[in-house]
Amino acid sequence: MIECLKKYLVEFIGTFFLVFTIGATAAFGDESCIAPLAIGFVLMVMVYAGGYISGGHYNPAVSLAAAIRGALEWKQWIPYVIFQILGGVCAALLINLLSGGLDAPVKGSFSLAAIIIAEFLFTFALCYVVLHVATSKKTEGNSYYGLAIGSTVMVGAFAVGNICLGAFNPAVAISAFVMGAVCCPCIMLITVATNLVAGACAALIYKCTNVE
Amino acid sequence: MIECLKKYLVEFIGTFFLVFTIGATAAFGDESCIAPLAIGFVLMVMVYAGGYISGGHYNPAVSLAAAIRGALEWKQWIPYVIFQILGGVCAALLINLLSGGLDAPVKGSFSLAAIIIAEFLFTFALCYVVLHVATSKKTEGNSYYGLAIGSTVMVGAFAVGNICLGAFNPAVAISAFVMGAVCCPCIMLITVATNLVAGACAALIYKCTNVE
Amino acid sequence: MIECLKKYLVEFIGTFFLVFTIGATAAFGDESCIAPLAIGFVLMVMVYAGGYISGGHYNPAVSLAAAIRGALEWKQWIPYVIFQILGGVCAALLINLLSGGLDAPVKGSFSLAAIIIAEFLFTFALCYVVLHVATSKKTEGNSYYGLAIGSTVMVGAFAVGNICLGAFNPAVAISAFVMGAVCCPCIMLITVATNLVAGACAALIYKCTNVE
Amino acid sequence: MIECLKKYLVEFIGTFFLVFTIGATAAFGDESCIAPLAIGFVLMVMVYAGGYISGGHYNPAVSLAAAIRGALEWKQWIPYVIFQILGGVCAALLINLLSGGLDAPVKGSFSLAAIIIAEFLFTFALCYVVLHVATSKKTEGNSYYGLAIGSTVMVGAFAVGNICLGAFNPAVAISAFVMGAVCCPCIMLITVATNLVAGACAALIYKCTNVE
Repeated sequence: MIECLKKYLVEFIGTFFLVFTIGATAAFGDESCIAPLAIGFVLMVMVYAGGYISGGHYNPAVSLAAAIRGALEWKQWIPYVIFQILGGVCAALLINLLSGGLDAPVKGSFSLAAIIIAEFLFTFALCYVVLHVATSKKTEGNSYYGLAIGSTVMVGAFAVGNICLGAFNPAVAISAFVMGAVCCPCIMLITVATNLVAGACAALIYKCTNVE
Repeated sequence: MIECLKKYLVEFIGTFFLVFTIGATAAFGDESCIAPLAIGFVLMVMVYAGGYISGGHYNPAVSLAAAIRGALEWKQWIPYVIFQILGGVCAALLINLLSGGLDAPVKGSFSLAAIIIAEFLFTFALCYVVLHVATSKKTEGNSYYGLAIGSTVMVGAFAVGNICLGAFNPAVAISAFVMGAVCCPCIMLITVATNLVAGACAALIYKCTNVE
Repeated sequence: MIECLKKYLVEFIGTFFLVFTIGATAAFGDESCIAPLAIGFVLMVMVYAGGYISGGHYNPAVSLAAAIRGALEWKQWIPYVIFQILGGVCAALLINLLSGGLDAPVKGSFSLAAIIIAEFLFTFALCYVVLHVATSKKTEGNSYYGLAIGSTVMVGAFAVGNICLGAFNPAVAISAFVMGAVCCPCIMLITVATNLVAGACAALIYKCTNVE
Repeated sequence: MIECLKKYLVEFIGTFFLVFTIGATAAFGDESCIAPLAIGFVLMVMVYAGGYISGGHYNPAVSLAAAIRGALEWKQWIPYVIFQILGGVCAALLINLLSGGLDAPVKGSFSLAAIIIAEFLFTFALCYVVLHVATSKKTEGNSYYGLAIGSTVMVGAFAVGNICLGAFNPAVAISAFVMGAVCCPCIMLITVATNLVAGACAALIYKCTNVE
């Protein structure tokens, strides 16, 4: 029980800092601030710090993929998701308090198809990478898992950050809505659903490609 | 047979994300988007995710170098190349669908000599690095191979991205042509040929320098 | 005794280069200089170079967290702090000599609440990361500890560098004051106190989350 | 003998790519090209590729520090230096051929004191880091040595690249002169001498701080 609470606390802290960094770079960063670099690397840092305790998911889609792959007990999925969302929303509220809320940073054209394709692809890539570098027996004990996981989010934010939310993470999508960075709730809900479907697909492809 | 299909699927996925990131940073990235950073790091991520399955080449020139060095069975070279090109072309078509095609991003002067020298040098560096960090017995079990491989492409794109395609990879050169980012097919063909020659040279130099 | 002097010398050198890099990027860096990248990575480098000798703290708040966690003898805390501050101040004086002193780089609005919250959060994150990646038995022998530690400071500087000093380190705060980069001494003192409190909190949370 | 030639070839190749990247980012890079990132990472890549063969110095000052520390036979120092300079000069001549020569990129004020202090400090840091992460028994087998070494040069170029050559390496200083990037030969000679003195000092401090 205590072991579970430790995991939930680690997931809360990691998701808090992930969302706080996303909000802070948007609210307070200057032009020379390369937000995707900061966002990818805060995820990396939190994965390295908490990975050995909770798995370092900080993302309901990653936790779903881990559960399908057998790296997380199914009964842990709901509490993981709750603490991830709690961590993200607390960070979002703190950003609101400090900044007075973000403007919706709509750049370029957000077609619905682009949002779904872009969120799907990089959430898929993220979960595919997580399962291969952090749960496969063949890569056990490596020192690169956090760098690979964080960098996937950095790459996604650079590549498609202007044609979708760039969340790749339901907890981030919900927190972005709380911060006022999403125009309408349906975009948030579509993003959340797409992220979860992508996580499930990645787990299936992991099972097709893993060699043990 | 199943093991081979796993390898081909991994090569397809990795090359898909490599080319998709190249296309997306060009089509949707804003000014603060440092494309070479994203491109180098997506390669790193895919090398870490799939390296233990297929070798994580995502590049016909790397596969050629690996075959000459004895790290890939010769009969696997053609199927590897096919799945790499398939992955790249699928990503290119998806970028075309999402963006309406890229403009040819011709910056600076593209002399034929510069194209050949620049593509040769960094494809050589890439294959030289791959063979030393990912196939030498003396460096086995290290955690830096993906970082070294991805960073070589990042460096090449920063250094000579304005005087050649900056592909260092026949699958990328072909995909760039599909995306309309290459002015004429002969530039694409010269790039492909140069990349393959550079891969072969790197394998020879590897054999001259490796100590086992 | 000799062993202790080695540790102090390493702490002196590491903090010297950390502060010198902070000052030099501010005084001599051009626009394309991404100061937080340089600052985070100089810390990473010094942690990798000296970590096996002194722990590679270069930060009184980190040393405090390490002492509370039991990774540093309490009687070593004061000498560590002294050599860290000495290293930082020497670097600051050298920057003053070379540049004629920095202007106070006040960007955005520095509310007192924002300063305290921002310094607290990222000093907490830094100490939480240090304890998990560099002192936990479960992560012993890893190769990522320096990358994780340096990157935490880089992320903090990107995220909240415009609403606080972005020191996350009492030795840096004092050195920034010496370089004239802090408007008034009370801001420096508040930063120092906040950093130390955050280090202590991180040590407590580490004890709650660590699994051994 | 063959083993020695392998080492010299590796030193030649590594220094060639280091100098070629420095020259190419200056001659062909656009504004979004962060030259120090490319320069630091090409060094990292070459250290990882060739470190297990020759030590991966690519720098006469590093080779001097390694010789003083006992990690390189003294009789190897001169041939190492020759092949390093040869590699650098070949790259410089190729850059000249491709670009028509660089303009001297004099930014800010180059006081002689600043040149000496800045070159000394970061060459010292580089050699101090190399000896600790790549030659100490206590850090043997780590996967971070290339990242630490390359990043030290990146940090130095960001921090003091505008008040000195930013070579931290006699072979680079000589090559920069060949490329026309140094106003007068005396600046080049002072840089070379400062680099070598800094390497020797770092070796002494290494001996004072290393614990084995």
